[in-house]
Amino acid sequence: MKRYALCLALCASFASPADLPTLRGYSADSSKSEHDWEAKFRAIPDTGNLRDYMQRLSARPHHVGSPYDKANAEWILSKFKEWGLDASIESFDVLFPTPKERIVELVEPTHFTARLAEPTVAGDATSGQHDEQLPSYNAYSIDGDVTAPLVYVNFGIPEDYEALDRLGISVKGAIVIARYGNSWRGIKPKVAAEHGAVGCLIYSDPHEDGYFQGDVFPEGPMRPKDGVQRGSVMDMPTYPGDPLTPGIGATKDAKRLALSDVKTLTKIPVLPISYADAQPLLAALHGPMAPAAWRGALPITYHVGPGPAKVHLKLAFNWDLKPLYDVIARIPGSAYPDEWIIRGNHHDAWVNGAEDPVSGQAAMLEEARAMGLLLKQGWKPKRTIVFCAWDGEEPGLLGSTEWAETHAEELQRKAAVYLNSDGNGRGFLNVEGSHTLEKFVNTVARDVDDPETKMSVAQRLRLRRMPGAVPEDGAQERSAGAGAGQEFRIAALGSGSDYSAFLDHLGIASLNMGFGGEDRSGIYHSDYDDFYWYTHFSDTNFVYGKALAQIAGSSVMRMADAELLPFDFDNFTATIRRYVAEVEKLSADARSRIVERNRAIDEGVFTATMDPRFPTVPPAKEAVPPFLNFAPLDNALAALDHTAQLYDQALAKASENGASALARENARATLREANSRLIAVERTLTSNEGLPNRPWYKHEIYAPGFYTGYGVKTLPGVRESIEQKQWKQADEQIVLVGKVLENAGEAIQGAAAELTKAARN
Amino acid sequence: MKRYALCLALCASFASPADLPTLRGYSADSSKSEHDWEAKFRAIPDTGNLRDYMQRLSARPHHVGSPYDKANAEWILSKFKEWGLDASIESFDVLFPTPKERIVELVEPTHFTARLAEPTVAGDATSGQHDEQLPSYNAYSIDGDVTAPLVYVNFGIPEDYEALDRLGISVKGAIVIARYGNSWRGIKPKVAAEHGAVGCLIYSDPHEDGYFQGDVFPEGPMRPKDGVQRGSVMDMPTYPGDPLTPGIGATKDAKRLALSDVKTLTKIPVLPISYADAQPLLAALHGPMAPAAWRGALPITYHVGPGPAKVHLKLAFNWDLKPLYDVIARIPGSAYPDEWIIRGNHHDAWVNGAEDPVSGQAAMLEEARAMGLLLKQGWKPKRTIVFCAWDGEEPGLLGSTEWAETHAEELQRKAAVYLNSDGNGRGFLNVEGSHTLEKFVNTVARDVDDPETKMSVAQRLRLRRMPGAVPEDGAQERSAGAGAGQEFRIAALGSGSDYSAFLDHLGIASLNMGFGGEDRSGIYHSDYDDFYWYTHFSDTNFVYGKALAQIAGSSVMRMADAELLPFDFDNFTATIRRYVAEVEKLSADARSRIVERNRAIDEGVFTATMDPRFPTVPPAKEAVPPFLNFAPLDNALAALDHTAQLYDQALAKASENGASALARENARATLREANSRLIAVERTLTSNEGLPNRPWYKHEIYAPGFYTGYGVKTLPGVRESIEQKQWKQADEQIVLVGKVLENAGEAIQGAAAELTKAARN
Repeated sequence: MKRYALCLALCASFASPADLPTLRGYSADSSKSEHDWEAKFRAIPDTGNLRDYMQRLSARPHHVGSPYDKANAEWILSKFKEWGLDASIESFDVLFPTPKERIVELVEPTHFTARLAEPTVAGDATSGQHDEQLPSYNAYSIDGDVTAPLVYVNFGIPEDYEALDRLGISVKGAIVIARYGNSWRGIKPKVAAEHGAVGCLIYSDPHEDGYFQGDVFPEGPMRPKDGVQRGSVMDMPTYPGDPLTPGIGATKDAKRLALSDVKTLTKIPVLPISYADAQPLLAALHGPMAPAAWRGALPITYHVGPGPAKVHLKLAFNWDLKPLYDVIARIPGSAYPDEWIIRGNHHDAWVNGAEDPVSGQAAMLEEARAMGLLLKQGWKPKRTIVFCAWDGEEPGLLGSTEWAETHAEELQRKAAVYLNSDGNGRGFLNVEGSHTLEKFVNTVARDVDDPETKMSVAQRLRLRRMPGAVPEDGAQERSAGAGAGQEFRIAALGSGSDYSAFLDHLGIASLNMGFGGEDRSGIYHSDYDDFYWYTHFSDTNFVYGKALAQIAGSSVMRMADAELLPFDFDNFTATIRRYVAEVEKLSADARSRIVERNRAIDEGVFTATMDPRFPTVPPAKEAVPPFLNFAPLDNALAALDHTAQLYDQALAKASENGASALARENARATLREANSRLIAVERTLTSNEGLPNRPWYKHEIYAPGFYTGYGVKTLPGVRESIEQKQWKQADEQIVLVGKVLENAGEAIQGAAAELTKAARN
Repeated sequence: MKRYALCLALCASFASPADLPTLRGYSADSSKSEHDWEAKFRAIPDTGNLRDYMQRLSARPHHVGSPYDKANAEWILSKFKEWGLDASIESFDVLFPTPKERIVELVEPTHFTARLAEPTVAGDATSGQHDEQLPSYNAYSIDGDVTAPLVYVNFGIPEDYEALDRLGISVKGAIVIARYGNSWRGIKPKVAAEHGAVGCLIYSDPHEDGYFQGDVFPEGPMRPKDGVQRGSVMDMPTYPGDPLTPGIGATKDAKRLALSDVKTLTKIPVLPISYADAQPLLAALHGPMAPAAWRGALPITYHVGPGPAKVHLKLAFNWDLKPLYDVIARIPGSAYPDEWIIRGNHHDAWVNGAEDPVSGQAAMLEEARAMGLLLKQGWKPKRTIVFCAWDGEEPGLLGSTEWAETHAEELQRKAAVYLNSDGNGRGFLNVEGSHTLEKFVNTVARDVDDPETKMSVAQRLRLRRMPGAVPEDGAQERSAGAGAGQEFRIAALGSGSDYSAFLDHLGIASLNMGFGGEDRSGIYHSDYDDFYWYTHFSDTNFVYGKALAQIAGSSVMRMADAELLPFDFDNFTATIRRYVAEVEKLSADARSRIVERNRAIDEGVFTATMDPRFPTVPPAKEAVPPFLNFAPLDNALAALDHTAQLYDQALAKASENGASALARENARATLREANSRLIAVERTLTSNEGLPNRPWYKHEIYAPGFYTGYGVKTLPGVRESIEQKQWKQADEQIVLVGKVLENAGEAIQGAAAELTKAARN
C-alpha cells in the first residue's frame, strides 16, 4: 500500500498536460484553472507597495491602546474596503498594564542606577519618538518593591535550578537575573517564583543578540548596549488572551474576573534590562563561578552569587482596560461558503515594529489586494476566505484569542484551516503546523520562486538539507523542519503567534509561515525595530515580503478553490509515529538515567570526584520510574496507519481521470460531506478536558510547553507527565491520547467512506 | 585464553597473605619485600620540603643561559650528593635566541603601539624582577620587519584556513593574528607561512585562559589583561633539541649546522601578545564576521579582515649559543646494573616557573631524597636508577634531547623505561605513555592515596568515569585517559616534555605523569607563574606534590626491584586494535565525506544555500580517495594477539607459587635474557627510516602530530598519510607498520620462550 501511495504521488506529479501536476483535491480541469489563477495571483504582489505599507504602519509606535494602533486598524480597514473586500473592525476591551514606575538599582556593595532607556540613534528618525514609545517592561508583571541579594540563574529554566542545587545555591528571598534565550521569557519569572525568588530581571546578553553575533545597531543589525527586549510575561502556557476573560470573548459586557483572581499574572515583579544595565550588576556578584555553558559575552568573570550584589527593584503599573481593534475582511465562498480558510497576521507592535509584525502584515495586505483584483477578473473561490489583522498579539495573543473565543462555536463548525504569519525576513521558508497539511505545503513551495536563487522555494530547501551541505553555523536550522528526500518536513506549532487559539483551543488545522535564516537581528521588541533598521539590515528590497505574499496567498487560494480539502494522513501518521517513539525513548532514558545516577550516588561518586576547594552538593537519590504501558498508543497508531491507507485508496479512486468524482456535479453533496468530515479530523485531536492543569489547551498532539513557553511539546499530556515525573498521570494520558487517535482514525474513515460513495455515484 | 588472563589478574590480586597482591614480575617473597620498601618510601616525602624546594628554585628567573639557571643546577647537584647519590652535571652548548628588539603597532586605520610587557603585581614579590625576566617572545622565530594588513585566523590550524577559503579570504602577504589554543603554538606560524603570510601574532584570548575561565590574577588564577604566554615555536614535529645539531649531542666539539641551514626555525617572524594588546588590533578588523566557533571572549564583534587594520611587526634576536646544565644522578643496580630506569623532570623555566617545572622538579627531588634514605636502610634496587634534572626543556626539549642523542647507543642497550613529569597540580592522576605499561601503572595507582579523598588514586579515577558521574565541565577530561571498568586507560604520548627523545627517537618505553584537573591556570609561561601564584591558587599545601613523589617514586622502585620487568602485552594489543580501527574509519570517512561533498557541489548546493549578501566560495571538488589495503595491519594484529596470550601463559607458568622461577637462583641468567628481550620490544616499534619527511621520529605507534604539535598521532605514518590525502604513502606505511608489529610479536615471543625455559629449569 505504501508503494501504491508513492505511485499516486508520482502519477499526480506527471500525469497532467503542460507538465503541471493535477493538484490534490482537484479534478484535472479545476486543477488547470487553479494553476492559471494562482499564476495570475503571484504576478501581482509588488515590492513598492510592501515598502509603502511598512513605512505607513511603522511610522509611529502602535502598541495596544496607543492612538496609532487605532489609526493603523482604521487604515487597514480602509484598504480592505478599497480592494473590494467586506471588512469591519471588531473591538474588545482587555487588561493591558503599562508602567507607572520602574527602578532598578544596585545598592550594595556599590551604587548603580540602571538607565532603563533606549537612546535616540542619529539617522534613525523614529528612534527618537520617546513621547509615544512604551517604556521597556514586561507586560503582566505584578507591581512590587523588593530589595534582595542577586543570583545569576543563566536562562532561568528548570535545569538551571538543578545546577544551582548542585552548587548549593538557593534563590529563596533573592532577586534573580536571567538572560534572554533558551525559553520563552515568561518561563523565567514563573520558575524563579516557584523556587522562592522575590524578583526577576531579564537581560539581553551580547552573546545571544549583541556584539557577539554581529555589529550592533546602527553599524549593524544587532542589539546595542542600551537596547532592551520588551515582552509579555503573562502565563500563556496556562491560557493566553485577556487575563480577565479566560475562555470567553472580552466583549463590552463579558463577565470579568477580579484582578486578584487572575492566574496568568506573574507571582513576582519582573523587568527586562539592557546589557549596559546588567553588566555592573553581574560584575558585582561573587560566589561560585557560573558553569561554562552559563557564561555570556560580557567582559567579566560570570559568578552565580548570591551577593555581595544587592538590588532594589521597584515596579508599579496602570492596570487599565484598553481597546483592541481586530480588522476582519471576508471573501465569501461560492460553493462551500460555510467552510472558512482564515488568514491572519497581527498589526500591533511593542514600539514601531517594522519587522514584528509589519513585515508580515504588509505581505498579508498585498495578498488581500491581489485577491481583490482577481475577484474583479472573475475568480470565484469555492470557500470563504477570512483575512484577520489582529490587534494585541504582543501582550498575549489578545486579539486573535478574544475573537476566536467569541466566535468559538461558529469557528468549530466552519473553520477548515488557519494560516498565520508574523515577522518576515530573508532566506529559507520556515513552515510549522498541522501535519495533515505537510504534503500540501510541499506542493505550494514547488510553485513559488526563491527571490535570491530563482529556483523554487522547495528546491532551495531540498538542497539545504543534502548531506555535505553544511552552511556556516546552520547545522541546527537544517535539522529543524527538514527531513531527507524530496519533501521537507514541517515543524510542530508551539506558541508565540496568533495561531494558538485556533489550533490549541479550537482544534483547527493551522499553519504558520515565513522566510528567514539569513539575516541576524538584535532589535526584537525594541525601539530600533523600525523602518530604518528593516530597510538597512533585513529584506531591504522587500523581495521576501513578496515571496511570502505569493506562498501564503497561493496556499489560501489552493485550499479555498479545491473540490476536496487537500488534507493528507500519511505524513500525519508518520509524524505521530515519530512522536510516539520519542516519548517511549524519553521514558526509557529517564528510567536508565535515574538508575545510573542512583548507583553513582550509592558508590559515592559525587563526593569522590568533587573538588573540595569548590564544593558541590551531591544530587539526591530518586525513586526509579515504573515502566509505562505504551500499548494504547501503539495500537492506535497501527489503526491510524491502516486508515490513512484506506483514505489514500479512496482518494485515488475518486480522482481517477475520465470519471473523476471531483469533477462530477452529482457527487457534489457527497463531496461536501467528505469535506466536512475532513475538517472534523483536527477537531478529534482535541479533548474536552484539555491538558493536565491547563484545560484551555485542548489539542492532544501539539501544545506550547508548560516550561518552555513558545517551544512546542508534542503529545504534550504524555510528554510533560514523563518530564515532570508524574508516572500515574503519564499512564492516564497515554490512554487518553490513544483514544483521541482512534477518534481521528474514525473521522478519516468516515471521509474515506464518503469519497468511496462519491466515486460510485 | 582471555578468561585465563583475567583469572591470572584476579589471582594475583588476592593470592598473597596479608591481602597484598603478588606484584607482576615478582616472586611471592620479593613482592612482600617490595611492598614493605615502597610503604617505607611513601612515608618519607614531606610537603614542607616541597615548599622549600619550590621557593628556592623559583626565587629568580631561571631560563636557559641565566645566572640562576646555572645556580639551580648546582644546587640540585649539591642536593643529590647530600642525599648520597652519585651525581654530576653534564653540559651542552645550544642555540638559544633572545630578543633584541620587539615592536608591534597598528599603523592603520588608527595608531596603537602594543605594550609587550607584564606589569609588576603588588603583593607578588617576584613579579617585579624585570631586570632578570626574559621578555615575552617566541623562541626560534626568525628576525623580521614587516608591515601588512591583518587577518584573524582563529587558532591558525589547517582547518581554519579551509574556512578562510570558503570565505574567499587569503592570508598571502598578510600578518595573521591567531589565538592560543587547539594546537601547539609552533603550528600557527608554520601553517601561516605555508599559506603565504609574512608575519604572525599569537594572543591569549580571555576565552581560553582569561576572565572567561575565572577571576584574573592576582584576584584569581587566570591570565590578566597584560599577561603573555611565552614559548618555543621551533618546528619540533620535525626534530626537537638544539637546531644546530640534529640527531647528535650538542657537545663542545659537535659538528654544527650553519644558522642558514637550520630547518626548525620559523619561516616568518612571530610574537606572542596579551589580550590587552590584541583587542585594538582585532577591533580594527572589518571584512566577514568570524564564524561563531572562532569568536573569543573579548567584548567586540570578531571580524576576519583583511584590513583596514594594518600592522607593523619588527623583531630582532641575539643568535647566541648558551650553556645547558643537565644534572644526572645514579643509583647503581645490584642485580641488573645495565638495565636502567630513568626518571626525569626539567628545571629550567621561562621566568620563575613555580608551576612549570618546579612543582614537578620538587617532587622528583623528594623522590631522590627518599631513595637516598632507603639506601641507607639497606634497600638494594636490582636495576640502575637514573635521576635527570633537565635544562633547556622550554626552548625545545634541549637538555633531554642532547643527552639522549649523546648517549643514544648506551641508552638503546640499557634503558628499560623513562618516567617523566613536569608541572603538577591538584586533582586527578593523568598518565600517558607506552601501553605495555598500562596494567603496571594501574597497580601502582591502587597503592597511592589521593590526598583529598583518602581513597586510592586509582579508585578516584574509577569513580570519575562511572556512568552518571558528570562533573561540571568535565565531560572531555573524563573521556581522555579513562576507560570503563576497573582499570583506567592511559593516553598516548605526543610531545611537550622531555620524554620525546626517549620514546620517539630511541624507542624506550616511557611514561609521563602528574596530577591536575581541579585548578585552572592562566599564568602558563608568564611572569606570574611564581611562588605567590602557586601557593595561592594551585596545590597550595603541596599534598599533590607529595602524591606525585609517591606514585612516581613507587613506579620507579617497582620497576627497578622486579625480577622480571612488568611489561604487559594484552592492553598493548587491545590499544593497537583500537588505533587500527580508528585509521580504518578515518580512511572510510574521508572517502564518504569527499563523495558526499562532490555530489553536493554537482547539485549546486553551495551556491543555492549561500546568502548572497555574505557570499562564500563553494569548495572545490576533490578526487575520490582509493580504498586502502588494511590487511597487513589486521594480520599483524591477529599475530600480536596470539603472542600476547602466549606471553601471559608463560608468565603464569613461571610465576606459579611453590616453584616460582622468579625466585629461583638458577633461573637468574634466563630471567636476565627475558628482561633484555622485554626491553627490546619497544625498540621493535621503531623503524630506521622514521616517519615520512621527519626521520628523527622513529616510533611507528606514537608521535606528535605534524600539524598538531603536542597532540599525539597514533600509528602516525598511516594516520597522517590519510589526513594529508597521501594515499600511496598510506598504503606503504600500512605495510611498514604491519612489519613493525610483526617484529614486536617476535620479540614478545622471544621473551615468552625465555620465561618458559626459566620455568623448566
